[in-house]
Amino acid sequence: MSFTYEYPRPALTVDCVVFGVDEGGLKILLIERDIEPFAGRWALPGGHVHIDEEIEDAARRELEEETGVDKLFLEQLYTFGAVDRDPRGRVVTVAYYALVRLADHRVRAATDARDAAWFAADALPPLAFDHAKIVEVARARLRGKVRYEPIGFELLPRKFTLSQLQRLYEIVLERPLDKRNFRKKILAMELLVELDEHETGVAHRAARLYRFDERRYRRLVRQGFNFEI
Amino acid sequence: MSFTYEYPRPALTVDCVVFGVDEGGLKILLIERDIEPFAGRWALPGGHVHIDEEIEDAARRELEEETGVDKLFLEQLYTFGAVDRDPRGRVVTVAYYALVRLADHRVRAATDARDAAWFAADALPPLAFDHAKIVEVARARLRGKVRYEPIGFELLPRKFTLSQLQRLYEIVLERPLDKRNFRKKILAMELLVELDEHETGVAHRAARLYRFDERRYRRLVRQGFNFEI
Repeated sequence: MSFTYEYPRPALTVDCVVFGVDEGGLKILLIERDIEPFAGRWALPGGHVHIDEEIEDAARRELEEETGVDKLFLEQLYTFGAVDRDPRGRVVTVAYYALVRLADHRVRAATDARDAAWFAADALPPLAFDHAKIVEVARARLRGKVRYEPIGFELLPRKFTLSQLQRLYEIVLERPLDKRNFRKKILAMELLVELDEHETGVAHRAARLYRFDERRYRRLVRQGFNFEI
Repeated sequence: MSFTYEYPRPALTVDCVVFGVDEGGLKILLIERDIEPFAGRWALPGGHVHIDEEIEDAARRELEEETGVDKLFLEQLYTFGAVDRDPRGRVVTVAYYALVRLADHRVRAATDARDAAWFAADALPPLAFDHAKIVEVARARLRGKVRYEPIGFELLPRKFTLSQLQRLYEIVLERPLDKRNFRKKILAMELLVELDEHETGVAHRAARLYRFDERRYRRLVRQGFNFEI
């Protein structure tokens, strides 16, 4: 079976906004393009969707090929298709995003990428195509998401302090939070289990350790919650 | 400039999930397909994106061509691209959704649509392609959206009762709400202006009328809110 009419088709690509967190803040994984257009300019990892592969598989494949990063949870962000977004012709891109712990991923460049590196989200170099816009949409989505879905399970150590959890939220929300207000609200979510242990190896007074109540965490991821912070 | 490699390209389409509300409940706008595949089966209005048009413009155009419905606010829902979703070959569709007041839109079929009609969201006929799945994703998005963005401004009369507003939420959330709890929470949002007027022409005790505080409404649409209902 075929189409009644044959329309000229746009090219279909994927692009990935991979956010990485560590104590220092929020970073974004970029590649330095090796081919025109924008050769030598930094860009999001991405590429064409093959005719026989799922879109998300294309995102995963391009990310691994260009940066070596794999085994991460990708979410579809938005499809960007402005007629003039690519000088080569009509290209529609399905953008995905992910939030990972920097320490979990080693980065190396290959294929269309001359180089690959993490950049501070607030200090990105000029980007190719409309990738700066895609990044802004991803940042807004990330900030919004933490208000209705818990974060931290894959990003923190198994046992952590409330300060570490607060720091994670501050990094993602890109603003400082009031310590007492944060503690009151996060504990009210009943997401955390207080452990009978304290930090070790710190110069200041050792803080109590917590872990996530995994079942409750997964349930809140599934059904959502309202975290007004 | 052209591409270094030419990849076979999927077809690119759009599909629209238009929700309509009235006192009776939630409805969805469907068209009866006039051509194969699935000729005679109901489906979402949609079609190919032309090489020189924006994706959202394609959604708007196909919707108007196939159903006569126009002048509505469309939001991108998700891009569905499963390899086997269309028997004609690889077709990736960018789905959009909208929520309108039924009374505002007259429906008539044309072009690829043999017929066009509103169906109760809980009583849809068998749909073509993966449109039943697209509808479910749209319904879930709509239910989630009302928790972080106010609704009603384009859907209710300018002056309305709290019962009418509650009914709108019940229709969208697809479950009954507790009257006292709803009133307490919606009034706490400071979205409404209490008017010095009451309903007219009703047999029961006439309820007080309200209107939206438009500036506050728009601000909450922009910045989001947490409406745990």
